Amino acid sequence: MADALPRATDRWDARARELDAADPIAFARERFRLPDGLVYLDGNSLGALTKASAERVARTVSEEWGHGLIGSWNAAGWVDLPGRVGERIAALIGASAGSVVAADSTSVNLFKVLAAALALRPERRVIVSQRANFPTDLYMAEGLAQLLAQGHELRLVDEGADPAGALCERTAVLMLTHVDYRTGAIHDMAALTRAAHAAGALAIWDLAHSAGALELALEASGADFAVGCGYKFLNGGPGAPAFLFVAPRHQGEARQPLSGWFGHSAPFSFEPGYRPSDGIRRFQAGTPSVIALSSLDAALDAFEGVTMSQIRDKSVALTTFFVEAVEALAGPDLRLASPRRGEDRASQVSWRHPDAYALAQALIAHRIVGDFRAPDILRFGFAPLYNRFDEALRAARGIAEVLHAGLHLDPRFQVRNAVT
Amino acid sequence: MADALPRATDRWDARARELDAADPIAFARERFRLPDGLVYLDGNSLGALTKASAERVARTVSEEWGHGLIGSWNAAGWVDLPGRVGERIAALIGASAGSVVAADSTSVNLFKVLAAALALRPERRVIVSQRANFPTDLYMAEGLAQLLAQGHELRLVDEGADPAGALCERTAVLMLTHVDYRTGAIHDMAALTRAAHAAGALAIWDLAHSAGALELALEASGADFAVGCGYKFLNGGPGAPAFLFVAPRHQGEARQPLSGWFGHSAPFSFEPGYRPSDGIRRFQAGTPSVIALSSLDAALDAFEGVTMSQIRDKSVALTTFFVEAVEALAGPDLRLASPRRGEDRASQVSWRHPDAYALAQALIAHRIVGDFRAPDILRFGFAPLYNRFDEALRAARGIAEVLHAGLHLDPRFQVRNAVT
Repeated sequence: MADALPRATDRWDARARELDAADPIAFARERFRLPDGLVYLDGNSLGALTKASAERVARTVSEEWGHGLIGSWNAAGWVDLPGRVGERIAALIGASAGSVVAADSTSVNLFKVLAAALALRPERRVIVSQRANFPTDLYMAEGLAQLLAQGHELRLVDEGADPAGALCERTAVLMLTHVDYRTGAIHDMAALTRAAHAAGALAIWDLAHSAGALELALEASGADFAVGCGYKFLNGGPGAPAFLFVAPRHQGEARQPLSGWFGHSAPFSFEPGYRPSDGIRRFQAGTPSVIALSSLDAALDAFEGVTMSQIRDKSVALTTFFVEAVEALAGPDLRLASPRRGEDRASQVSWRHPDAYALAQALIAHRIVGDFRAPDILRFGFAPLYNRFDEALRAARGIAEVLHAGLHLDPRFQVRNAVT
Repeated sequence: MADALPRATDRWDARARELDAADPIAFARERFRLPDGLVYLDGNSLGALTKASAERVARTVSEEWGHGLIGSWNAAGWVDLPGRVGERIAALIGASAGSVVAADSTSVNLFKVLAAALALRPERRVIVSQRANFPTDLYMAEGLAQLLAQGHELRLVDEGADPAGALCERTAVLMLTHVDYRTGAIHDMAALTRAAHAAGALAIWDLAHSAGALELALEASGADFAVGCGYKFLNGGPGAPAFLFVAPRHQGEARQPLSGWFGHSAPFSFEPGYRPSDGIRRFQAGTPSVIALSSLDAALDAFEGVTMSQIRDKSVALTTFFVEAVEALAGPDLRLASPRRGEDRASQVSWRHPDAYALAQALIAHRIVGDFRAPDILRFGFAPLYNRFDEALRAARGIAEVLHAGLHLDPRFQVRNAVT
């Protein structure tokens, strides 16, 4: 494939080298174990393994569990791990100490905070969201609304329309994902939260594609609740525990219905009645997975000595360079689905192409990993802690070569897998 | 301490040796990594580490995640792991293929099945349980009842009273834990389920202290729903994923409210509306923790070549031997809190003593690990896959020696930790 296109591209190599050499956070890549020769641009779906996670998981399993056994709930601090991990995530998303806890999955956490929010607006029955929101968020809202059986309605705004336009005096909650998982478009969190509050509603933000990738001012934006994912840009591992945020002003009053013993004020006194703990801890439910939490905790070490502002700057530079390289090298077959202005775009670049699925598969066969999102999106995530400009260039060249060779038309790349 | 009591106990040593030599499943102990010299009798709280789990977690982290990255959802079969682990658990609890899935925590799973059960009995408003049920089950029921705001009542039967006596035509659900976590007393699952059905109610069983320890005929008993714990006798690791069972006859109709994308009929088609998958899969919510599930999956290897009948026989023999040894060696200060007849007792022996907390601490200091449960219970769990009769004897001797030396009155053993 290397000969398929003329390499009139030396200036691209020079530019990538220059950008990598000037990258102030290039050192962080050494904290990861990345397969040799693989260009991994899917950290927005599953973040890469850190050396710290591999070591920590082994220690948690062999020493804390295997040797310390039940005593490790105290001796190894397992009982406080959800809160400690929460504090570290809080520092990455612009939230204050005591406002974030790591627990359960994003879906389950959304259920908790949505139920809590609806209870704070008992006279209102409308949840406003977007049809293009990540589906599990909509499914969870649907499940909660059906369960409540009080006539709650999920009002979904079409793509392109302003969600603020759907707010009214019946709106209890505006529930949005900060970054569109397909296009990478970023909502204006502060403005939409203000609009929600102006309508008397509360705002819930899903930070799945934001946490660890964007510079967030979650609390300053006025957000009431938030949830987010541990396995994307936080690199916690497949199905890592998620997190949730509750604005300090709501913590006294807000209650969540998954009132398990880990959210009890005195979980080990084994009382028959539930008394929610003070603060964010009441947003836990059952016993947390210590191994999974340990992996996430250790993964957060990769952010040490790096500011979210540096991460965001590199992210914009990486995606901008990639857009330019793809458009220059691969030609007009791909249509940019992401916002063109770097500041409007999260840490991903998505392209539309009728054969997007086969293109993604052909690229994977050539060791360039992006992913496909229905119906026609070819998506590349850039994880500033480990991705390099030279990888962005190799991906752009790979796309050009696959298109030039017509590999996306090869039937073997068109067979669908269960997960992509 | 070895000299504190006369060793007129050689016949006990001989008996323990004899029982260990005759143990048909003694070979399974080699599948575990147990700390040298520790007598671990708390596997009913946190099961011990298997060699298979340690190896599997390392492989899942380094190879599947670290090397396979996002492709492992297909290539390493992550996407089917909740169902595959569920099938293996089904085989241990007397449930048919397709009726069990591994997911979330026991608390969260209880919420799902209780919500599903209440929806199947929409005209009824009472949930019958026991005051002595494991608290998180009661907390979750309380949380659901409050959320529903339809006047559901949690009717708690006092200890000693027959829960069947509280059933009436308003009872929607009888929700019980099969084994009392404090005493180890076993409910008659088939009889109580029949009583629930006779009253027109459904039966939910929590198998936390049963799965992996008792020979269960869950499906034959008529149970409608069940939940259970992955980290006790199944040895899945701290906070391991839990499981849930839905009787095949309910699977078409039953819906659960935590309707996340992993329970969707086509999770990767990203549709805005929820369509529950067929069968047990709809009882999943969000993305499962693959590392934690892998640990649990591998831990189940320890059951290979061992029948639940053998496990139960050894369990009864172990606890019977322990009761006899404690009563002979430690004297009358301890009062048996567990049923005296082996067949009525699950895989634990509990004793009442006013200084139970300090006793447990003093024993831990002497490398004998049981635990304390408020207010006055000293509890020892016996895991037939790895515990030996000689450990039961060492524990009985340790108790006798601690009592004889008065160590339970030592103030340093009376300081309470957060978790015991």
